[in-house]
Amino acid sequence: MRFFTEIKPLKTYVAEQKREGKIIGFVPTMGYLHDGHLSLVRKAKLQADVVIVSIFVNPLQFGPNEDFAKYPRDLERDLALLQEEGVDCVFAPSAEEMYKEGFSTFVEVNGEITEVMCGKSRPGHFKGVATVVTKLFNIVTPDLAFFGQKDAQQLFIIEKLVRDLNLNVEIVSVPTRREEDGLAMSSRNTYLNPEERKAATILYRALKCGEELVLAGERNPERLKKLIEEFIKTEPLARIDYVEVRSVPDLKAMDVIKGKFIIALAVYIGSTRLIDNFILEVD
Amino acid sequence: MRFFTEIKPLKTYVAEQKREGKIIGFVPTMGYLHDGHLSLVRKAKLQADVVIVSIFVNPLQFGPNEDFAKYPRDLERDLALLQEEGVDCVFAPSAEEMYKEGFSTFVEVNGEITEVMCGKSRPGHFKGVATVVTKLFNIVTPDLAFFGQKDAQQLFIIEKLVRDLNLNVEIVSVPTRREEDGLAMSSRNTYLNPEERKAATILYRALKCGEELVLAGERNPERLKKLIEEFIKTEPLARIDYVEVRSVPDLKAMDVIKGKFIIALAVYIGSTRLIDNFILEVD
Repeated sequence: MRFFTEIKPLKTYVAEQKREGKIIGFVPTMGYLHDGHLSLVRKAKLQADVVIVSIFVNPLQFGPNEDFAKYPRDLERDLALLQEEGVDCVFAPSAEEMYKEGFSTFVEVNGEITEVMCGKSRPGHFKGVATVVTKLFNIVTPDLAFFGQKDAQQLFIIEKLVRDLNLNVEIVSVPTRREEDGLAMSSRNTYLNPEERKAATILYRALKCGEELVLAGERNPERLKKLIEEFIKTEPLARIDYVEVRSVPDLKAMDVIKGKFIIALAVYIGSTRLIDNFILEVD
Repeated sequence: MRFFTEIKPLKTYVAEQKREGKIIGFVPTMGYLHDGHLSLVRKAKLQADVVIVSIFVNPLQFGPNEDFAKYPRDLERDLALLQEEGVDCVFAPSAEEMYKEGFSTFVEVNGEITEVMCGKSRPGHFKGVATVVTKLFNIVTPDLAFFGQKDAQQLFIIEKLVRDLNLNVEIVSVPTRREEDGLAMSSRNTYLNPEERKAATILYRALKCGEELVLAGERNPERLKKLIEEFIKTEPLARIDYVEVRSVPDLKAMDVIKGKFIIALAVYIGSTRLIDNFILEVD
């Protein structure tokens, strides 16, 4: 497995692979890998000749009061896991390597898609995401890039970014991996104490409840939101950031639930903010 | 000569050329070509195997009160000129092809480099330039891209954009082409009536005057600006938008003229706004 912390030698490596006609698959991560990340890697292994994983906790996508400093990191463990999966190359740059002195260029996806949900709760977050993803795509020049559906809003924004800026990459989305009890895998789950860990299943159960309501015929998004909110409030450790029911992939509000849509949640369990979603479809 | 108005077939053409190992040279233009553009093309012919010229009057880089609608266009003449130069491929998309329905992603270079000079006079202009250039680079995927020094601020911004976003292209700058009497070639020169055309040489003469002052030992940027402004005011048809003396390439204000620097002018001749500059260097 090749390991790079600098952009230039990585670019040389990628150029060599491309000259040999290899299909490059790319999995961008913030490290502290769990089975969700590894499912992206496995999908990439199936579809690409060369799999490159980046590990970079991007300061640009964290707000001033967010958890950048305490975000969990364990490069050694990550490298061992990726080696085991047969990954070809890991790119783990420093913030200084990614944002050289004088850096001041940003990519911004405008419109409702970035303004609602996590865009509302985390101002500047998606500007940071769009900028780093554009940079990583230009550095790695992948044919395919793999993103998890757990970060559905991010996924839709990146798909739009690729379309709008004519980036030469195909985005592949991969279903959310869950623990036995339904909790979506996330590096932030490590913040939870045992009591909070139990309470955290409220997100999955709330989504299940929402799905059942839709299956039972509920088509009013406001009523659905309200019912899901009430369900979540039964958990004393949970504090709702948002519950949203919106169209997919443009995340518009709907008068009536129809076609492809998302039920998306952000909920604090203690001081840990967790997100989860179901993407559903009705006639 | 190949001619494309759509992105997809152009991308296919470029991919074919790349598979054959060809070096792609790219000259982005807004059309209505003059000898300045053709000098970019000739430079590209020398350095690249395949030369692609784009012709696109980018609505995004024109302000609401600017000359987008009346900007001169003559595709037939442009194609004849490019054919004569031995250009391999012309890309002339419509605005609808470049900005598909729902387009809302922008690239912005922040900081003094985009805030001063034309960035101050034309709010949003460089955001439009950075966005379209990023798109064109992603569409054409050139190895080399050629820009004229007449638009020096644009050139420095694009060089910064390429660095900051890790774009895989080398920027080549080409000296300003001038008419016999020194007027910098520009498609906007066609707006000038004969009297204005004569008056328009004031820009070049003012730059020459500035250069002479520096050669004579002037190192105070404020005093240099003042003297150039006074020189321009001797022309009754001229109205100064800005006269700036700044460092190159970051366009910072200087206490003392030192190293590489630019004398940059924007001057209205009648209702036509013209720009020009000298890039100079002193110990």
